[in-house]
Amino acid sequence: MTAPLQSTLAKTRTASVALALLDPKVIDATLLKLADASINDAEKILEANRSDLERMDQTDLNYDRLQLTLERIKGIARDVRAVAALPSPLGLILEERTLANGLHLQKMSVPLGVIGMIYEARPNVTVDAFTLCFKAGNCCVLKGGSDARHSNEALVAIIRRVLKEQNLDPAIVTLLPPDRSSVEAMLTAHGLIDVLIPRGSQSLIDFVRERAQIPIIETGAGIVHTYVDESADAAKASAIIFNEKTRRPSVCNAIDTLLIHSTRLADLPAMLEPLEEADVELFADEASFATLEGHYDASLLHRAKPEHFGTEYLSLKMSIKTVENLEEALAHIARYSSKHSEAIVAEDQNICEEFLRRVDAAAVYANASTSFTDGAQFGLGAEIGISTQKLHARGPMGLKELTSEKWIVRGNGQVRE
Amino acid sequence: MTAPLQSTLAKTRTASVALALLDPKVIDATLLKLADASINDAEKILEANRSDLERMDQTDLNYDRLQLTLERIKGIARDVRAVAALPSPLGLILEERTLANGLHLQKMSVPLGVIGMIYEARPNVTVDAFTLCFKAGNCCVLKGGSDARHSNEALVAIIRRVLKEQNLDPAIVTLLPPDRSSVEAMLTAHGLIDVLIPRGSQSLIDFVRERAQIPIIETGAGIVHTYVDESADAAKASAIIFNEKTRRPSVCNAIDTLLIHSTRLADLPAMLEPLEEADVELFADEASFATLEGHYDASLLHRAKPEHFGTEYLSLKMSIKTVENLEEALAHIARYSSKHSEAIVAEDQNICEEFLRRVDAAAVYANASTSFTDGAQFGLGAEIGISTQKLHARGPMGLKELTSEKWIVRGNGQVRE
Repeated sequence: MTAPLQSTLAKTRTASVALALLDPKVIDATLLKLADASINDAEKILEANRSDLERMDQTDLNYDRLQLTLERIKGIARDVRAVAALPSPLGLILEERTLANGLHLQKMSVPLGVIGMIYEARPNVTVDAFTLCFKAGNCCVLKGGSDARHSNEALVAIIRRVLKEQNLDPAIVTLLPPDRSSVEAMLTAHGLIDVLIPRGSQSLIDFVRERAQIPIIETGAGIVHTYVDESADAAKASAIIFNEKTRRPSVCNAIDTLLIHSTRLADLPAMLEPLEEADVELFADEASFATLEGHYDASLLHRAKPEHFGTEYLSLKMSIKTVENLEEALAHIARYSSKHSEAIVAEDQNICEEFLRRVDAAAVYANASTSFTDGAQFGLGAEIGISTQKLHARGPMGLKELTSEKWIVRGNGQVRE
Repeated sequence: MTAPLQSTLAKTRTASVALALLDPKVIDATLLKLADASINDAEKILEANRSDLERMDQTDLNYDRLQLTLERIKGIARDVRAVAALPSPLGLILEERTLANGLHLQKMSVPLGVIGMIYEARPNVTVDAFTLCFKAGNCCVLKGGSDARHSNEALVAIIRRVLKEQNLDPAIVTLLPPDRSSVEAMLTAHGLIDVLIPRGSQSLIDFVRERAQIPIIETGAGIVHTYVDESADAAKASAIIFNEKTRRPSVCNAIDTLLIHSTRLADLPAMLEPLEEADVELFADEASFATLEGHYDASLLHRAKPEHFGTEYLSLKMSIKTVENLEEALAHIARYSSKHSEAIVAEDQNICEEFLRRVDAAAVYANASTSFTDGAQFGLGAEIGISTQKLHARGPMGLKELTSEKWIVRGNGQVRE
């Protein structure tokens, strides 16, 4: 790590000590000031955003994700206010007991300390990440994408100005330059960053996992299945699959593979009609291809190759695999799932319960759309990402997942025998 | 990773799928059989242990840690029975809610999957680690020290035989050869091992942290301080320090540095008299050295050098630093603590609360011995280690810390707007 980066991260570490002791009311008041400031300074933000947009081809898929508008800035401000209004996750007594010797123990929620985030295109993640980390008493070190460089700089400048105006240390948030040396510094920041959260493509996440020497939380990648059982209600299945695929095809909870019980192949053409109208491309195995041929737009219907299973499409594409029974469906899911969200559609409650019990994933659904895998939907208030690992956090990560804990022990001279 | 190691770890991964669904009653019954078997086969275990002991110099500090006796084997069996008697940490509903649209959500505790353990001398850790992992529905991959090779092989052979007798997959536990290639395989076992727990020296833990490409939980290293405040009761301070240093000097919760308020220097000779009787070596800063000189055995009293602070002694040694006030004590702790256990001795309750609030460590004590940092003492039933990191688990790790969770969502056709 270069000396300037070391010094920058050391300042954030120092800021985290004071921040951990700050009254949650000051945190909430600061967030409200930030919401106001981002609207007052909207023109500055938009100007910076325009200079980012000028460098990007308008046909680039990321153009829309990068673009800010006054409406979007108002949306950011609204989200900041919503987080300010949530209860603080800090200082909660998670366990409490008094031992026979009179020792009084409390396990209390405390901030994690310094959270590192490495992310890509969308500049609203910058405010989002700061807001959630700060609400949970944490400093954050951010490394956004180079496409959004000016937008991110403008947003962090506003956050730091608001922090200073509230007499808080601006080092509570640090934006690192979007280059390789920043990433390398974060990956090796033992003692300076407590946890690193990569958000973005699978290749970014793999890169971070393979090289990080500090704890990380993997987020994102969702290879999502829905199994339509022999006992399924065809209308429910059709509505659920349509919702899972088309609501927001670019997000991680969208369906990638439909598993269909062989006795229900005949229902496929009607079941997938809404997908055809939405121009969804299908990669169908032999049996489902034979059933769909002549019923589904030929230009959208392809024969599945092995690589079409275990792929996260993030677009209007879906593969179909025919299975003979629940066991085959479970085996396919165990092999290809990224353990994010998995669903079954079945009227047979025993089959549903067996599926819910046996599928190993962050969220397992019976007769509902995987689109619900989302912190706000789950009642967590907000989310910083969806963890696909089993340690510390699994599924949508809210404020609670941005805290740690400590044991507080009060005695009057007790010693251990 | 070599092909045979890959194949071995794949078998454990497969075993974990079935184990996750096993009735907790079968787990408990199997543990009771294991307790019986380890006593019935005590002679085999002792024989294997003797062949390990023959290779070690009797003057080696690890000789005693390696040695098994019939009494120690009975102790191991007793511990296994105690874990069997604990409530299962699996299938607990941690959160539950019904959304306005009728969706019913449950967050349920589930096994982590496969837990890797890398540890050193003591063979009882082998049974201990298996017992706790298995109770929480996890498979385990163990890599013990080469000193304990035969002892560990004998113990794992008994565990695997008991598993087979119960019609369970013996791959639930795997002992890897104590060599470098095993460690390398574990460090890169993405998708095969869900979490790796190193237990042992700081150098082992550093090695694992720097190279692991899978999640780890750091355990152990405790650089522990106790601050004796101006308002301290001298008798309480004396008893607490004596307990912290001499109860078990080789464990991580033992005190390393005494911080003494300058106004209480005059109490030091009497306060440390019990330590002198226990032959504790002191590394005292200038002010405390001057006070102790002539009162404390000169052969045990040394002047502190900078390296005596921030050292985990794991033996009958302790450093002493004089501070002018609470702030100085807090600053010293923030600089040198490994965030394991920290204590204050003070009658002034405001000072105690300030200390408890501001010290960032897994366990923070007022007027009690840090020796209590231990899973059984904290009422967790048993512990697999003491986490010094902030993610997933902090402080003593019991059965709950060996689980993950999943969201189970039951609907009747709900889709997201």
